[in-house]
Amino acid sequence: MAERFANRGLLGELAAEFAGTLILILFGVGVVAQVVGGGIGDHDSIAWAWGLAVVLGVYTASRLSGAHLNPAVTVALAVFKGFSWRKVLPYALAQTLGAFLAALIVRWNYSEVLAKVDPGHTVKTQGVFSTLPGNGTLPVHMWGGFRDQIIGTAILLFLILAVTDVRNSAPLANLAPFIVGLIVVAIGMAWGTNAGYAINPARDFGPRLASFLTGYGSAWRDQYGDLYFWVPIVAPVIGGIIGAGLYQLLVDRFLPREGAPEPGRTPPPADYEAAAASR
Amino acid sequence: MAERFANRGLLGELAAEFAGTLILILFGVGVVAQVVGGGIGDHDSIAWAWGLAVVLGVYTASRLSGAHLNPAVTVALAVFKGFSWRKVLPYALAQTLGAFLAALIVRWNYSEVLAKVDPGHTVKTQGVFSTLPGNGTLPVHMWGGFRDQIIGTAILLFLILAVTDVRNSAPLANLAPFIVGLIVVAIGMAWGTNAGYAINPARDFGPRLASFLTGYGSAWRDQYGDLYFWVPIVAPVIGGIIGAGLYQLLVDRFLPREGAPEPGRTPPPADYEAAAASR
Amino acid sequence: MAERFANRGLLGELAAEFAGTLILILFGVGVVAQVVGGGIGDHDSIAWAWGLAVVLGVYTASRLSGAHLNPAVTVALAVFKGFSWRKVLPYALAQTLGAFLAALIVRWNYSEVLAKVDPGHTVKTQGVFSTLPGNGTLPVHMWGGFRDQIIGTAILLFLILAVTDVRNSAPLANLAPFIVGLIVVAIGMAWGTNAGYAINPARDFGPRLASFLTGYGSAWRDQYGDLYFWVPIVAPVIGGIIGAGLYQLLVDRFLPREGAPEPGRTPPPADYEAAAASR
Amino acid sequence: MAERFANRGLLGELAAEFAGTLILILFGVGVVAQVVGGGIGDHDSIAWAWGLAVVLGVYTASRLSGAHLNPAVTVALAVFKGFSWRKVLPYALAQTLGAFLAALIVRWNYSEVLAKVDPGHTVKTQGVFSTLPGNGTLPVHMWGGFRDQIIGTAILLFLILAVTDVRNSAPLANLAPFIVGLIVVAIGMAWGTNAGYAINPARDFGPRLASFLTGYGSAWRDQYGDLYFWVPIVAPVIGGIIGAGLYQLLVDRFLPREGAPEPGRTPPPADYEAAAASR
Repeated sequence: MAERFANRGLLGELAAEFAGTLILILFGVGVVAQVVGGGIGDHDSIAWAWGLAVVLGVYTASRLSGAHLNPAVTVALAVFKGFSWRKVLPYALAQTLGAFLAALIVRWNYSEVLAKVDPGHTVKTQGVFSTLPGNGTLPVHMWGGFRDQIIGTAILLFLILAVTDVRNSAPLANLAPFIVGLIVVAIGMAWGTNAGYAINPARDFGPRLASFLTGYGSAWRDQYGDLYFWVPIVAPVIGGIIGAGLYQLLVDRFLPREGAPEPGRTPPPADYEAAAASR
Repeated sequence: MAERFANRGLLGELAAEFAGTLILILFGVGVVAQVVGGGIGDHDSIAWAWGLAVVLGVYTASRLSGAHLNPAVTVALAVFKGFSWRKVLPYALAQTLGAFLAALIVRWNYSEVLAKVDPGHTVKTQGVFSTLPGNGTLPVHMWGGFRDQIIGTAILLFLILAVTDVRNSAPLANLAPFIVGLIVVAIGMAWGTNAGYAINPARDFGPRLASFLTGYGSAWRDQYGDLYFWVPIVAPVIGGIIGAGLYQLLVDRFLPREGAPEPGRTPPPADYEAAAASR
Repeated sequence: MAERFANRGLLGELAAEFAGTLILILFGVGVVAQVVGGGIGDHDSIAWAWGLAVVLGVYTASRLSGAHLNPAVTVALAVFKGFSWRKVLPYALAQTLGAFLAALIVRWNYSEVLAKVDPGHTVKTQGVFSTLPGNGTLPVHMWGGFRDQIIGTAILLFLILAVTDVRNSAPLANLAPFIVGLIVVAIGMAWGTNAGYAINPARDFGPRLASFLTGYGSAWRDQYGDLYFWVPIVAPVIGGIIGAGLYQLLVDRFLPREGAPEPGRTPPPADYEAAAASR
Repeated sequence: MAERFANRGLLGELAAEFAGTLILILFGVGVVAQVVGGGIGDHDSIAWAWGLAVVLGVYTASRLSGAHLNPAVTVALAVFKGFSWRKVLPYALAQTLGAFLAALIVRWNYSEVLAKVDPGHTVKTQGVFSTLPGNGTLPVHMWGGFRDQIIGTAILLFLILAVTDVRNSAPLANLAPFIVGLIVVAIGMAWGTNAGYAINPARDFGPRLASFLTGYGSAWRDQYGDLYFWVPIVAPVIGGIIGAGLYQLLVDRFLPREGAPEPGRTPPPADYEAAAASR
């Protein structure tokens, strides 16, 4: 992939990561605001909208930056796929900035309904912007969330590599971004109980900061008063590396070695782009 | 694109815009009538059916007219993509006429159930046809809806350009209409609280007029008595231009300049066979 | 298409229509039995499962018979697409037989739960198998259902032709069956209030007969005691012809005449079209 | 297919079956734990997440092993498609081991919420891991579940063969795994009443053993005290053979005989792999 990035300007890559993560959070935080603030929709809406947010964010950024949209993805690709380490921090900052700005837009647009359901801007609606152990209500504490975020992000990275690996059977016709989004729909439906499936440090920290700056004074702590903000930052990075490593161990090393798929499997370069794109 | 339109008759383009928007509203207004009038389904049904309505309306019209189905799209394409300005008004009229006729069909078919739940045809079921601030119940007023419609339509146009830009990584195999529909599913789930995600002047004005002519005397005003009908007309046009402009700024200008996709993106002929096959 | 059918044996075509409609009803009547009899799921499950039933039934039969799975489709194709009239009756019988057998299987498998919720096998659970005006509860009578079935089936046939017309922008990669299924998801969400969106004489009559033979003595009548069974047979056939005719009138006649798509449609230009199309 | 398997190491095939089934159950058991333990989501979430679990598990394993992920699939392919009998047991063990480990991970991650809603780890939450007749609440007994599992798995195998048969009209562009997942969504919505649609011996036995070893002492019996664990093992194997046989009888034998599709239909080898892969 390095070559791909070489012939693009870093500015374009960062603009794409910024724009893609902006789209991700405009829908991701937006849907929670609509459900919690507006009383419209339910957890299924949240799971679907987050997944569709990924689909659309990835289509936005994939050609220019590969559409990581998540520092845990960026780090895992640096560890296992030769993504340039010197780009990790710039990517992570662009992702976080996009998430932060998107959360401010949601905060602004949903100000009336949030003020109505939670005038004090307490932990009750804090979950609109950032995650809490047990989503603020279930009997799960910080370490339960930490464990959950390692597992959830491991599943995410394992599957991102699996469905975009053209040596495996990645979808063609530039449809990998759609399947990647379905990973997040499934994680939301099955792995969202203990820690609101942050699985993305930028997704959690950017909106958390935005909510803190706009009236959510308790944003750094969970419902038990524990300092929690670091959990959805640290655990996803660890989990992503574990998941990507397990893909190498269980699947990748058994796939045909040649750099390119054998003739019979050759997808058009466009599809390599598509597959690579959603990484 | 101008060339594309040149070798089609304008009549065919207008027929396609009329037919595609008719399909859009037969499902879009139909699903709200079913949920509100029939008590069948919920907000998730509304979000999905509107999105599928877009998928199907776009497949209907795409070959002949490019399937704008929305004056905000037509104007944004005129501003940024060289769509002929002299066609903007005819397109907008064809779209509005299709929406108007579709709303009359829904009004007729759902007359019994609407008469049952709202004999006076009041603001209670007015939302079946046209949008209201806060969907008629939440504490949002006219300007909150105006703000929301600018943001929502900006997201729509930004993403329509992103997922259909072949210099980016648009889906191949004629599946872009499916992904475009998912944009509207996501907007419905995340951006439908403040103003019922009209994001389309034809979608709102056509059915509003149809409802006014068939017993909804208060159709031009919102639940507060404010004249509201102009908001879902003006705000989407402004928002669409902003969103399309942001795509140019953040993504498009960084993409490779050549007019056509590079050879490497040519999909295999197999796809042509596939089309024949799926007949 | 006539040519396609010519080089297949009629027996294979009828076996495919039988098998495809069997699949359709195993899921379609199955999901209603699960929701009504088992109390598992809701109307959204019904809309989605019916649509997925179409996707899977069409993949089953499409190669051998073209996967009509519906006499209203078969008749409309005979009227407008040169499908052989002498095959219309055999196809309709094979479709109805598949639907009848599938309904018996559902009736058998769900016998315990149906006996629990409706020991008398009354109109209360009759709707599991065949349709009723207003789904048995809303203030809609026979003629409201008749009107609704004409409109609903017109929408169905208009869109089946639209999304499978390769001169238009039909999905490639053998994915048309998926999009065709989405038509039925959308109809279920938006056009299922007045008459349970039968939109298919085989779908309604086959299971109706199966339920009548297994304890539903009132199967031929609606909740008002009116003889209703003929409505979901006659209205869909009329509606299908109207819808297919409207597609000819509004879209098809404006499409390039040549039998095959012009070179300009060969992918990648086709994909540019597709991409542009959804703008 | 034998040839395909020949040039892969058996270890890689078993690693892929292990990994794919692990993914399947991480989501499949995970979603039920989230709904039952966390009170987040509903039966629709369960149906969708199980289906997406199949999509993602199949993409994970398809290239190396063909992604059976289910002993009922493995046996049916041995009976009808020449899959090597000597690999049936190793595949089944790898699948069961993956399911077992995944269930332990879910058991661990959801320990707090499960302890909260069912401190005694009784039949009340046993259904999170393994299936029960009537899902533990409806008036269905062991033999009702046995009958249901034969029918449900027959539908599964019939359709897996139908949608992946390139002589029929299988989806191209490596999208067969997506459509295969939709089969399981539909089965969950329409065939999940009587026995929780196990339709997979590994899916049921692996998690059942995991739950038994972690506090669910009654795991081998149903709510009536009958020994039930064998039903979701034996019935799916029988049903799978029946369903695959019916596909041969009703569709396959009518398809063109030549080993490869006729020229006009030739999909690129990549797609043959894709289609074969999801078998």
